[in-house]
Amino acid sequence: MTKMTAVLPSAEAADPAALVTALAQDARAAQRQLAAMPSTARAAALRLAAGALRAAAPHVLAANAKDLAAGKARGLSGAMLDRLMLDEARLAGVADAVAAVADLPDPVGQVIDSSERPNGLKFQRIRVPIGVIGIIYESRPNVTADAAALCVRVGNAAILRGGSEAVHSNRAIHAAMVEGLVAGGVPAEAVQFIPSQDRACVGAMLTASGLIDMIVPRGGRSLVERVQGDARVPVLAHLDGLCHTYIHAAADPAMAEAIALNAKLRRTGICGSMETLLIDAAFPESAALVAALIDAGCEVRGDPRTAALDPRVIPASSEDWDTEYLDAILSVAVVDGLDAALAHIARHSSDHTDAIVTADAAVAERFLNEVDSAIVMHNASTQFADGGEFGMGAEIGIATGRLHARGPVALEGLTTYKWQVRGSGQTRP
Amino acid sequence: MTKMTAVLPSAEAADPAALVTALAQDARAAQRQLAAMPSTARAAALRLAAGALRAAAPHVLAANAKDLAAGKARGLSGAMLDRLMLDEARLAGVADAVAAVADLPDPVGQVIDSSERPNGLKFQRIRVPIGVIGIIYESRPNVTADAAALCVRVGNAAILRGGSEAVHSNRAIHAAMVEGLVAGGVPAEAVQFIPSQDRACVGAMLTASGLIDMIVPRGGRSLVERVQGDARVPVLAHLDGLCHTYIHAAADPAMAEAIALNAKLRRTGICGSMETLLIDAAFPESAALVAALIDAGCEVRGDPRTAALDPRVIPASSEDWDTEYLDAILSVAVVDGLDAALAHIARHSSDHTDAIVTADAAVAERFLNEVDSAIVMHNASTQFADGGEFGMGAEIGIATGRLHARGPVALEGLTTYKWQVRGSGQTRP
Repeated sequence: MTKMTAVLPSAEAADPAALVTALAQDARAAQRQLAAMPSTARAAALRLAAGALRAAAPHVLAANAKDLAAGKARGLSGAMLDRLMLDEARLAGVADAVAAVADLPDPVGQVIDSSERPNGLKFQRIRVPIGVIGIIYESRPNVTADAAALCVRVGNAAILRGGSEAVHSNRAIHAAMVEGLVAGGVPAEAVQFIPSQDRACVGAMLTASGLIDMIVPRGGRSLVERVQGDARVPVLAHLDGLCHTYIHAAADPAMAEAIALNAKLRRTGICGSMETLLIDAAFPESAALVAALIDAGCEVRGDPRTAALDPRVIPASSEDWDTEYLDAILSVAVVDGLDAALAHIARHSSDHTDAIVTADAAVAERFLNEVDSAIVMHNASTQFADGGEFGMGAEIGIATGRLHARGPVALEGLTTYKWQVRGSGQTRP
Repeated sequence: MTKMTAVLPSAEAADPAALVTALAQDARAAQRQLAAMPSTARAAALRLAAGALRAAAPHVLAANAKDLAAGKARGLSGAMLDRLMLDEARLAGVADAVAAVADLPDPVGQVIDSSERPNGLKFQRIRVPIGVIGIIYESRPNVTADAAALCVRVGNAAILRGGSEAVHSNRAIHAAMVEGLVAGGVPAEAVQFIPSQDRACVGAMLTASGLIDMIVPRGGRSLVERVQGDARVPVLAHLDGLCHTYIHAAADPAMAEAIALNAKLRRTGICGSMETLLIDAAFPESAALVAALIDAGCEVRGDPRTAALDPRVIPASSEDWDTEYLDAILSVAVVDGLDAALAHIARHSSDHTDAIVTADAAVAERFLNEVDSAIVMHNASTQFADGGEFGMGAEIGIATGRLHARGPVALEGLTTYKWQVRGSGQTRP
């Protein structure tokens, strides 16, 4: 840690592009060494990093107290301060998560497929690390540890750029992680923390083609929007989670109600929460469903047919169908059958997660095949849109783009592949 | 075809961004229908397109004659005119290639993996089309048919922007393809041809985020460079094919010579041709190897140790190690062992294809694991870097980026996946 603080002043002085370039070049060189380590050695180093985090708890919590004090002085909201806040239990959770990533199976080295051609050439596609991953994030200091652990597990270098409000916490967590990783043989430069708070550093990361292979933004809509707008490096992200649930005519009413309530209200602030409910005109219990939502504390903004179901429904404006509330507010429309539901979703979905509730298997299959979102669900709450719930053990984010990886992304999405071709002297005729 | 020409005048008049937006929106709507067709119907439509291409031969050849005449008048080089030229045999080859794509196995619908969680939720990852693919290409009119066929096979819409020098040929091929596809039930708008030669149309394609999902440039370095520089849409491409072959100390001398000659000289103008030969200082037949290359008509530009092997070696400049000659010119360096070869390749490779020749299996495995290129080869000519040689039956291009797809890209690289989640009423606790 003395080494870190000794390095900071000169780094702070450098111009942002030169700073990011220097860090990324170091990260790139370190990544080659990291990738050459056996997977078990990377896992062991992560366990040491988890231990170092636990050992550094007093230091990290003191750093976090500084951030909290500065945040209060700056008038951060209670929700922001809560995201920022670490205590013994939360920090133990952060360290446990790092150790849990060490235990995840490593996809690197996996043979995706193999074949042999008539000329005797043998082809194999092998999973390899992507290279250098940039993570740009806000407030939550646990991302420093989580993202670094996921990258390192599969042999990627990480360049971390956290929010200014968490700078002391992030720096302390980074220093502890690196101390543990280095003890495990990982080069210190494999996990870089951008020491400057200059916003131009973010711009430099976004345009560092050839030095940074992928950017993962973790934070609110404005951060993701900026990253997607300015990046020349590929970005893995989702902008909105405008998730729909369609209650089909043949839905079991009790299941429909349970799923709708859970999808909207279990946690309203997550990207997998339902924002629009589509109720089939032929669903017999639509009034009861709308009443249950309102009774549970949800504001319902409905089209005229929904408004006719309950006097407490607020008329929806045209913007409501494209609004991610992240709150106890829901837009509700009555639709005439599956095709109308599909058309509404095709027009308004953010391609994140869309669900159908129905007892009709053929209708469900059409929905699962024709809705073109990263995640499509039958008879389940959209709140399951989460890497942990998918059995991935962790997630670096959820992607709604169409290339490379879609939906929850964990270790596999942090890898790519190469072709290994083995011959015995073949030349091409 | 009358329908096509009737549409053109108004389209030509439109401003480029509006034109591309309108075509892409139509393509997007058509893509949904195309994706909903059974795979066998898409294949059948492609066979009809191949037939329509054969039937339209006189029309296509007449259009090609116009392009050739205009090209001669503009003073295009012989090589350019040859790339542009179609005759009965070449056109039959184009149609056969379309029919061959129809016969390729369709990855769409493939289950990549599946799992069931303790709560009973069932997860499947299913291959789906990417969506709308933009292809920006030069001179070779066969790309019009090839690229459209590959896209349509897996349910993607294609937006084609060919070079001005081939505009009549491309238009005629496109019209014939669409006629066949439409007869097979594919919406005409699924394969769009940009009717305007305004270069701003390319810019509009490159920035059509949300309308075009991926751009594939097919052409020379300057085209690819512009596309990679300006695109806000993901690009699948390679800029350079700076391929290395490393002749290890334990290489069989006859095999080394055969592979080196083939890798450099079989065809010098393709991206998989070798541009740099690294000869281990301990390889006993280095002088004979260099002499064989020069005797075969190759200009050898060498470092001082290579120059000492043969008086005909020209001294290499520092730029030579980063130059893709695409000609009978080769840069040659003598290196001290595997690590020096790996370091040279890490510094100068374009991440396309790099090969080692050695009888030492352990050395070969280190090379295959540590060289970080899309394709790594042992005891084979780099000229095998081609989708056909990989058994893919076709290729839309070769990618040297690190995300989504690497190396030769055919049907699978034109797909993505979605998550299908099947439940029985699960809500998240």
